[in-house]
Amino acid sequence: MKSDLDRLMQERGFDTIVVMGLAEGNHTLRYMTNGAVITEGIVIKQHDRQPVLICGPMERDEAAKSGLTVVTYADFDLYKLAKELGNAFEANLHMMAAIFERYQVTGTVSFNGVGDPGRSFMMLSRLSEMLPTIKITGETETGIFDEAYATKDAQEMVAIRTIAGHTNTVMGEVVDFIKRHEVRDNALVKPDGKPLAIGDVKRFLRGRLLEYGLEDNGETIFAIGRDAGIPHSRGEDGDPLKLGQSIVFDLFPRALGGGYYHDMTRTFCLGYAPDDVRRAYDEVMHIFNDVMEALAVGEPCRHYQEMTCDFFEQQGHKTLQSDPSTTEGYVHGLGHGLGLEIHSRPRLNAVSDETLRPGQVFTVEPGLYYPDKGFGVRIEDTVYIDEKGEVHSLTLFPKDLVIAMK
Amino acid sequence: MKSDLDRLMQERGFDTIVVMGLAEGNHTLRYMTNGAVITEGIVIKQHDRQPVLICGPMERDEAAKSGLTVVTYADFDLYKLAKELGNAFEANLHMMAAIFERYQVTGTVSFNGVGDPGRSFMMLSRLSEMLPTIKITGETETGIFDEAYATKDAQEMVAIRTIAGHTNTVMGEVVDFIKRHEVRDNALVKPDGKPLAIGDVKRFLRGRLLEYGLEDNGETIFAIGRDAGIPHSRGEDGDPLKLGQSIVFDLFPRALGGGYYHDMTRTFCLGYAPDDVRRAYDEVMHIFNDVMEALAVGEPCRHYQEMTCDFFEQQGHKTLQSDPSTTEGYVHGLGHGLGLEIHSRPRLNAVSDETLRPGQVFTVEPGLYYPDKGFGVRIEDTVYIDEKGEVHSLTLFPKDLVIAMK
Repeated sequence: MKSDLDRLMQERGFDTIVVMGLAEGNHTLRYMTNGAVITEGIVIKQHDRQPVLICGPMERDEAAKSGLTVVTYADFDLYKLAKELGNAFEANLHMMAAIFERYQVTGTVSFNGVGDPGRSFMMLSRLSEMLPTIKITGETETGIFDEAYATKDAQEMVAIRTIAGHTNTVMGEVVDFIKRHEVRDNALVKPDGKPLAIGDVKRFLRGRLLEYGLEDNGETIFAIGRDAGIPHSRGEDGDPLKLGQSIVFDLFPRALGGGYYHDMTRTFCLGYAPDDVRRAYDEVMHIFNDVMEALAVGEPCRHYQEMTCDFFEQQGHKTLQSDPSTTEGYVHGLGHGLGLEIHSRPRLNAVSDETLRPGQVFTVEPGLYYPDKGFGVRIEDTVYIDEKGEVHSLTLFPKDLVIAMK
Repeated sequence: MKSDLDRLMQERGFDTIVVMGLAEGNHTLRYMTNGAVITEGIVIKQHDRQPVLICGPMERDEAAKSGLTVVTYADFDLYKLAKELGNAFEANLHMMAAIFERYQVTGTVSFNGVGDPGRSFMMLSRLSEMLPTIKITGETETGIFDEAYATKDAQEMVAIRTIAGHTNTVMGEVVDFIKRHEVRDNALVKPDGKPLAIGDVKRFLRGRLLEYGLEDNGETIFAIGRDAGIPHSRGEDGDPLKLGQSIVFDLFPRALGGGYYHDMTRTFCLGYAPDDVRRAYDEVMHIFNDVMEALAVGEPCRHYQEMTCDFFEQQGHKTLQSDPSTTEGYVHGLGHGLGLEIHSRPRLNAVSDETLRPGQVFTVEPGLYYPDKGFGVRIEDTVYIDEKGEVHSLTLFPKDLVIAMK
């Protein structure tokens, strides 16, 4: 959590961390600015000192909502520099050097945030030349923010619990919406007699999300039949909702404009479930429950992926463990941490080197995929390990395969 | 436009461009994948050859929608590499080297996209060492995609005109919504007698955007009074709509989940306009019309910012030209290009080195800001220069300051 940053800096030998870039998709900048909505900015965090936010003068009021000390580019004469040098890149380099001088930055400085890879390479190479006494670096594996993100503090848990509640409510509202439709010729129809299609469901869903101040960025998965058998297929808007086909409904919204995520998946069959879907569903539920039971502080995260692969292999399915290129059977990792980004630490996959710890929030999401047989199944809860090491699901929506139709 | 890429590569001496990173906020990846929605990917574009998309095997179906040749990480044994090396960073480095070998990449390679700045620095430094015969580089000023983005092709203009139409329609629906409210004690009230607040307007707005398949990511500016005097203040949800106060309504949605933007601003006063707001409004409209009249292919973009500053200074206002740190008067650039990102080339500001060209789509948005006097004014259209060099506004919504209340 955020209070770990000084310790994490010390462990890594970082005297200063710089977080920079445009705000869009920049979870680290949002994390450091406590959610204040600015277009771009630079946060300087020195060891054992409070962070400082440097941003455009037009954004000073929004920036102040971060609670950080705010300084503007104008205070560093960025616009004068740009005019003199005739070059925004050079002006930004000189501004960074001036910031380092003002805050007496020395030693090892690690850069974080979001930027164009080639430009970052050029900028940090040049900065290394300009400031030979400072060691410019970055992180290649588990970074300081990956570590900090992996556990949540009490303030974050308030936001996480709120979005969990809203997401579960909306899932229920969508199921109710579906159930209200009549069945004709094995498919759902709207009051006007036209087929109820995935696009209709998603439109209803997004309206409901909006009511709770949430957004899905168009990314919700509501995939039926063969598409349900391809984990990242989002479903085709034009496809009708038919009885007896598996529907993978993976809902992972966040607060409008950015904020904490919730991530949950349910698999549904309308009316009835065919035998092969039911069998796969029971197997997925079996290992889901076994994993939930087995989750324990101190265990390697990798262990749960292995346990899931072993179980599915015993049932006769291919897995990434038995065949790394398989596209049927169990074809993905078991889970991932989430917070301001949808995929973060810990990772419950075969290459994870992490262990379960109090404060972590992550998904558990086993699944089975048979695109060529026209179905897929996935069940996913977001879980939280409290300070005592107890595991709680934040996804309380029921896990019933069949939605009974009237 | 996209068809310029080979020429632009040749001009810069780039044999290959690589576009990489997570998809979120990665306009360049979206541009190259023609809008296909994948989580992350790598596009390799060699000179005079069609681009190739490399992504996770789970996303192969979505990736195929790009129309590009799709190859997956599994084809490059990424998962085996990660297991052998025990290190995702090294595995990705080796995969990149293997990709370069497979496609016989030689010469100069420029990297683009989105990434963590420190990690990009480490990765491209290491790749330079591993592949000493290849020159790894990035762009620091106007990049190849900045150039490509700056002009739009016919296919892009279809999407741009569609979103322009929808955005103008929604602006009208919001104005109608506001007008339907009763006035009591100089403020608008809802049917239940409670004050109509900015949050109510934004909730209505977002519902309407959704109907047209648009999203605002919570970023719409609807700011009243003093907040209208701070260009990037978005307005406070709890603030009531009062008569006689300037409202800056800056609406810049895009297609749900990402796509082309439209950007427009209108300033409104409900019921009546105070003299100082009216005077500022007339001045802003005066220079807006002068600029629209003066826009001409071949002219330096800088010219229009200077023209606007000169005019406002003649009227007795401070500008960034007369006082770079001013927070009142005219405090920003005149406009910016837009496309898949909200701010791109051309830039109509004091440091721009660009000229107006056919195919450009950009905003014209003069404004005057007096936070301490409790008001601000801005007018913004998105304009397009057609292949004949004629300038068209895509923002046809009327420019009336006062919204008459019943």
